[in-house]
Amino acid sequence: MSLPVTLAAAFAARRARLSERFGGPALIVSGLSRPRNYAGNRYPFRAESHFLYFLGRPLEGAALLVEPGRAVLFAPLPDPEAELWGGKQASLDDLARELEIEVRPIDELVASDELATLPAQDAEGAIWQSEVVGREIIQGSGVELEGRDRELADAVIELRLTHDEAAIRQLRFAAHVAERAHRAGMRGTRVGQHEYEVRARMEAAIIASGCSCSYNSIVTVHGEVLHNERHDGLLETRDLVLADVGAETPEGWASDVTRVWPAGGQFSTTQRALYDVVLAAQRAAIAAVAPGVRYLAVHRAAGLEMLRGLLDLGIFRGDLDDLYMRGAAALFFPHGIGHLLGLDVHDMEDLGDRAGYAPGRVRSASPGDRYLRLDRDLAPGMAVTIEPGFYQIPALLSNPDEVGGLSSALDRTRLLEFNDVRGIRIEDDVLVTSQGREVLTAAIPKMTDEVEATIRDR
Amino acid sequence: MSLPVTLAAAFAARRARLSERFGGPALIVSGLSRPRNYAGNRYPFRAESHFLYFLGRPLEGAALLVEPGRAVLFAPLPDPEAELWGGKQASLDDLARELEIEVRPIDELVASDELATLPAQDAEGAIWQSEVVGREIIQGSGVELEGRDRELADAVIELRLTHDEAAIRQLRFAAHVAERAHRAGMRGTRVGQHEYEVRARMEAAIIASGCSCSYNSIVTVHGEVLHNERHDGLLETRDLVLADVGAETPEGWASDVTRVWPAGGQFSTTQRALYDVVLAAQRAAIAAVAPGVRYLAVHRAAGLEMLRGLLDLGIFRGDLDDLYMRGAAALFFPHGIGHLLGLDVHDMEDLGDRAGYAPGRVRSASPGDRYLRLDRDLAPGMAVTIEPGFYQIPALLSNPDEVGGLSSALDRTRLLEFNDVRGIRIEDDVLVTSQGREVLTAAIPKMTDEVEATIRDR
Repeated sequence: MSLPVTLAAAFAARRARLSERFGGPALIVSGLSRPRNYAGNRYPFRAESHFLYFLGRPLEGAALLVEPGRAVLFAPLPDPEAELWGGKQASLDDLARELEIEVRPIDELVASDELATLPAQDAEGAIWQSEVVGREIIQGSGVELEGRDRELADAVIELRLTHDEAAIRQLRFAAHVAERAHRAGMRGTRVGQHEYEVRARMEAAIIASGCSCSYNSIVTVHGEVLHNERHDGLLETRDLVLADVGAETPEGWASDVTRVWPAGGQFSTTQRALYDVVLAAQRAAIAAVAPGVRYLAVHRAAGLEMLRGLLDLGIFRGDLDDLYMRGAAALFFPHGIGHLLGLDVHDMEDLGDRAGYAPGRVRSASPGDRYLRLDRDLAPGMAVTIEPGFYQIPALLSNPDEVGGLSSALDRTRLLEFNDVRGIRIEDDVLVTSQGREVLTAAIPKMTDEVEATIRDR
Repeated sequence: MSLPVTLAAAFAARRARLSERFGGPALIVSGLSRPRNYAGNRYPFRAESHFLYFLGRPLEGAALLVEPGRAVLFAPLPDPEAELWGGKQASLDDLARELEIEVRPIDELVASDELATLPAQDAEGAIWQSEVVGREIIQGSGVELEGRDRELADAVIELRLTHDEAAIRQLRFAAHVAERAHRAGMRGTRVGQHEYEVRARMEAAIIASGCSCSYNSIVTVHGEVLHNERHDGLLETRDLVLADVGAETPEGWASDVTRVWPAGGQFSTTQRALYDVVLAAQRAAIAAVAPGVRYLAVHRAAGLEMLRGLLDLGIFRGDLDDLYMRGAAALFFPHGIGHLLGLDVHDMEDLGDRAGYAPGRVRSASPGDRYLRLDRDLAPGMAVTIEPGFYQIPALLSNPDEVGGLSSALDRTRLLEFNDVRGIRIEDDVLVTSQGREVLTAAIPKMTDEVEATIRDR
């Protein structure tokens, strides 16, 4: 499978759909690259996702004007001085030919109060964008838009919520590259290594596929730290390695996958038991994915199935439904079952719950649901992650406020027998189809015997 | 060789030296992390280099106050809510114990016009810094400082120009990791691969050593594009691969190394001939490195040696010194021989030529010297790169303004015979010692037969 390239016509169709829904004029900006330790040493440029959606090419300092019957790309003129360092640059005519769009110098863009826009993510980008549109734009303020900007956000959300064929090809490829990464990680694991040695193999598989990481990789023996970005721990025989690693295609589309495997090559009995509980919860959630189903129901299906498993293992005692209502699942599975996936690994999170929550729905305050990033009715073409987890988090388990009334139902003596499990999460990328669902990351080893066989296959 | 850790006492000594030179109060800020495609998806945090120099720990949103007899770290309080996601956070007491410094909450820092400071690199960091110090700080404005800020910059430059033992240990390790990366790159090269496959192996070696990349890797068959950041080209039998790839230790110290090798495993006669010309120029430059020598002289030694080689090959005809004066070397070697190396790969470039140029010296306008980033008298403890190159750059060679009077001296027919060479650069990291110099990256294969043997050793 080689890198898919989206044709200009697909982007033109997206722009046409935007102007149908929104009218115009809308100005979609690409943003600016960000300095790392000095101006000449910059992070790799990553264009704003909305810009990539409608154009596909990460041009720095560019803006796309969309209005009824017309789309114009405003781009910076090539800098002859920069040619010595950066090589031959595409002229505006080159861009027009390649991207099949009218291209004008960015200086010719006339600022106007009529231009609706979506805010750039960082301050430097927003300062530049403010000059371009002629009014103050606050970085990362997509959560609190008003007026025409908000209408533009809603139109873009409506488009980006369900993926077209070109987008699905990109997501499939990102999922395929995640498979390469996770297999490389499993195969390369040895007791005595540092976490960063496993991470190195996984990220190498991503780079060697022409992609980049869609987010900062989590590769850790401390999976109970949900967003653990340290990689300097040592792998010991009884450790589980949790790897949450995904790829991003050059056009910007993401995968987001978590697997867990035993550093020593074999799950212990207790690790296997809890792993299978999480796996059953994940399967229940995936089975629940279908058009018309509310995502909150998928989340609850996972929590309920996980709690059933914990009852079977004797970690909890009591009535399933009663315990679930009292937040028992959330004590070990405090986050949401997943989120939208697309050009962002949390797709359109820059626009806040306006993207993830259907109109009229708001986040619940309950411990089990409060971190759920998505609550819409699923529809064909949506892509979501399904990622239940089981974690022994000291901040929860030793906090009387969190354990509260569950204290008598929780068998801490039994739980102690599972102390070789700190954190397990199993995460796949799932496309909603008219028939139900398709797991884009299905080829990545997931059952305990598959995982063990992959580790042995060195 | 394992990751070196600098002891708290070394940082305390640096802070003491700063307050001796500058007095105080000086406020050295760490900066903020930068969003990638949305606020929750951020680039890995890289603290400001000045902060790393005086503290070593990349704490986000922190500031170090240095004044005579006293240093205080102002740090954000741990956020209990964040513990669920980020795990147990160091308390201020933990930090005080580990870093052996007084630590206070950042909210207790009193803004004052008396506080001298060095500007953060990006807008978000500078906005935050403006609040902290109580006056407007412009991002990346280290080039144009005034008053006490300028005095602080000069004091910091004086310290950072020559490296102490702890810094040299860091630079040695970064150089050692670059060796791993370049050997992995050479060994992993196969005709028919994409450039990014070679890059993947090299960066994997860096990550697997617990380091990160000190700059965006250049791995290309188009070495004539000096800052080429594309990696999607295919390796063909007659291609030379140019890899400019360096490592950064967790404390922030950099290596910066370029090697060139034949994709097919063997240099052609013409590639070998030009490679040896660049290598001779590099050796001449390294041999010229010694305390008291002006770096501009090192630069010119390289250019002169390269031109001698081009005359020997018949690419130029004429008198060596006369041609050199007329810019003949710069036609194929348009950039400087190197730059300072330290916490930044172009060390202290955030402070502009104030760091690279000795007081009273300014950049020359001549084609051969204008891009030289450093012109100081070398002193023991300074680290510099030595990186001459030979490039056939269309923007120079087909530009009558650039070739000008050299047209009759340049044998274009002879040059055509070397059309299997687009770009060659050979770059090492060199520490100035009291005896002369030490090449920190000496273990990385460099002679053509060493390079070929490394490629064969699969």
